[in-house]
Amino acid sequence: MLKFELLQEDKTSAARLGRLTTAHTTVDTPIFMPVGTQATVKTLTPEDLYEIGAGIILANAYHLYLRPGCELIQQAGGLHRFMNWKKGILTDSGGFQVFSLSKLRDINDDGVWFHSHIDGSRHFLTPEKVMEIEAKLGADIAMCFDECAPYPCTYEEAEKAVKRTSLWAGRCKKAHNNDKQVLFGIIQGSVYPELRERSVGELTALDFPGYAIGGLSVGEPKEMLYATLEVTTRMLPREKPRYLMGVGAPEDLLEGVRLGVDMFDCVLPTRLARHGTAYTAEGKITVRNALYAADFSPLDARCSCYVCQNYSRAYIRHLIKAEEILAQRLLSYHNLYFLFQLMAGIRAALAKGEFPSFYREFFHNYISA
Amino acid sequence: MLKFELLQEDKTSAARLGRLTTAHTTVDTPIFMPVGTQATVKTLTPEDLYEIGAGIILANAYHLYLRPGCELIQQAGGLHRFMNWKKGILTDSGGFQVFSLSKLRDINDDGVWFHSHIDGSRHFLTPEKVMEIEAKLGADIAMCFDECAPYPCTYEEAEKAVKRTSLWAGRCKKAHNNDKQVLFGIIQGSVYPELRERSVGELTALDFPGYAIGGLSVGEPKEMLYATLEVTTRMLPREKPRYLMGVGAPEDLLEGVRLGVDMFDCVLPTRLARHGTAYTAEGKITVRNALYAADFSPLDARCSCYVCQNYSRAYIRHLIKAEEILAQRLLSYHNLYFLFQLMAGIRAALAKGEFPSFYREFFHNYISA
Ligand SMILES: [Zn+2]
Ligand SMILES: [Zn+2]
Repeated sequence: MLKFELLQEDKTSAARLGRLTTAHTTVDTPIFMPVGTQATVKTLTPEDLYEIGAGIILANAYHLYLRPGCELIQQAGGLHRFMNWKKGILTDSGGFQVFSLSKLRDINDDGVWFHSHIDGSRHFLTPEKVMEIEAKLGADIAMCFDECAPYPCTYEEAEKAVKRTSLWAGRCKKAHNNDKQVLFGIIQGSVYPELRERSVGELTALDFPGYAIGGLSVGEPKEMLYATLEVTTRMLPREKPRYLMGVGAPEDLLEGVRLGVDMFDCVLPTRLARHGTAYTAEGKITVRNALYAADFSPLDARCSCYVCQNYSRAYIRHLIKAEEILAQRLLSYHNLYFLFQLMAGIRAALAKGEFPSFYREFFHNYISA
Repeated sequence: MLKFELLQEDKTSAARLGRLTTAHTTVDTPIFMPVGTQATVKTLTPEDLYEIGAGIILANAYHLYLRPGCELIQQAGGLHRFMNWKKGILTDSGGFQVFSLSKLRDINDDGVWFHSHIDGSRHFLTPEKVMEIEAKLGADIAMCFDECAPYPCTYEEAEKAVKRTSLWAGRCKKAHNNDKQVLFGIIQGSVYPELRERSVGELTALDFPGYAIGGLSVGEPKEMLYATLEVTTRMLPREKPRYLMGVGAPEDLLEGVRLGVDMFDCVLPTRLARHGTAYTAEGKITVRNALYAADFSPLDARCSCYVCQNYSRAYIRHLIKAEEILAQRLLSYHNLYFLFQLMAGIRAALAKGEFPSFYREFFHNYISA
């Protein structure tokens, strides 16, 4: 099941406030979805994530199919029960991972032969097979199996991927049969406006309950990301949710919202945590640097999260230098909290019709550092 | 400050129920103290530890002196504030670490020259210097700087270490000057009863508020551990707390209590977690084994901890295989909870005068697996 209500639209941009209801959750959009690729958002428990405000998390069909296997998860009662997560889950189909992580052997219109990045074992994935996997995982929202073209790629390559993505989207839709789970289509087309247009046309003809924008944040310059996003969201149906895949830097969240995106996901907050970096209202800081050795202030003076209320930069830097895992846990918590506060701020501004000033103020602070 | 009340004594053994009050906490004994060597109990927050029931944790003067430095911690307002821990802390002096981790350069009655195990830098520690470090850290309980003889060692080596430990204990006591912090003496003597006796005599002559039993759990057979413990505790003053250093396997906690120990610490629960092993009422299980791949039961069916209420062996095994840190966090939580429940069970049995039957029942279950 899926319900999407548009609550408010910004007058000066494509930004919008909405409410999304799935089988396990109701969330206000625009929303950020933490990434739990392997059935865990790195270092954090579901309770941590509820506390931070998470309503939907991501998991990855490709990863979970390879390990621990989707039959095992089905046997456990589905992904929600397996990982003890009671709110919404969106499973990425693994199209992106098949093309980026595995050793590709052969791709044709029928499906993809590849070798597992874990143990080298040989697998064949088709749109139908992926639907079967996602049904076993039992997420609230499943994604179509798509072909994600790399960046850069030629027009011809991108065109081929668009064609195949449309073909596979049709087969996914046909194979998908699960009234608790909804299926989103994925728009491809690299950075070529005509291809994006074609992809939107072909996908919307299949009438999905929501659309993801794929093939971005794969190495293209920011201006290309924004320009492609603009032409894509403009053509998407107003009344359906739009999900920009793999994008989640604070500045991109602001731009994405401005261009009409409702849902985001990104590994950045937890990946930056692993590298000893924290978001702050004034920009990112690399806490592991010697600069912070005797800095007894919190990660972000404006943040009211558990970490900022209780720990100093000096302590977290010590944990990093001592290779203590708690560093990663505390940084992941704070970074996610930071993004959730940002999204809450965006939604509050949209509700009050003040998105433009919120947008300006954010960049005034965030860039100035 | 320190207050120790004996509440009850077992009629059939040296086991005793007590209550210990320090500057930051009051705990019932026998107690297990989680180890936070580098100012963090690996993977866990203070809130996790409060939830588990921890009232005193350990930290290590040697490690914190080398990194991040005790001046930094003093600047932060002491170890409690630095690491956000509001209950009791006991700092080990680092005698054991100087002898086991660092490259020793020279030891004489004055002190020890050694090279840091982290960066090779050269340091000189004396009893007075260690007291200064521990004062800066500001733990509730500080330990004397001692010489910990290895196992095996000759009578003559062990005798030398006892002599020096007594000499240094006197100097530590003289140098210690902190009315919020109390100083415990450490008994040495390897596995030689006469040396243990001599060490107890020399240390108790200095009249410390509590005594630690050091130099055990360094590789000697279990029977020697128990035998040495027995002769040592027998000679220690009844009215003062006794702390057995570095011992914490479930069976050793039971034996230690039976032989009159009040306080324990051990890295085992968090170290086993790193190796994918969990305590259960029937013995240890190595969850990472394939045997548990599709085992949807909790780590320990009799455990009511957060982890056992919410996660299966199959899920935790998946996290281990996928190298996800949450595995270590969940296992650390459960293992510590298991030991805290065990200690709570021991105390309840002591209060009811039923320690002997509790002891028998534990070994009946724990060994049988
Ligand atoms: Zn924060
Ligand atoms: Zn448990």
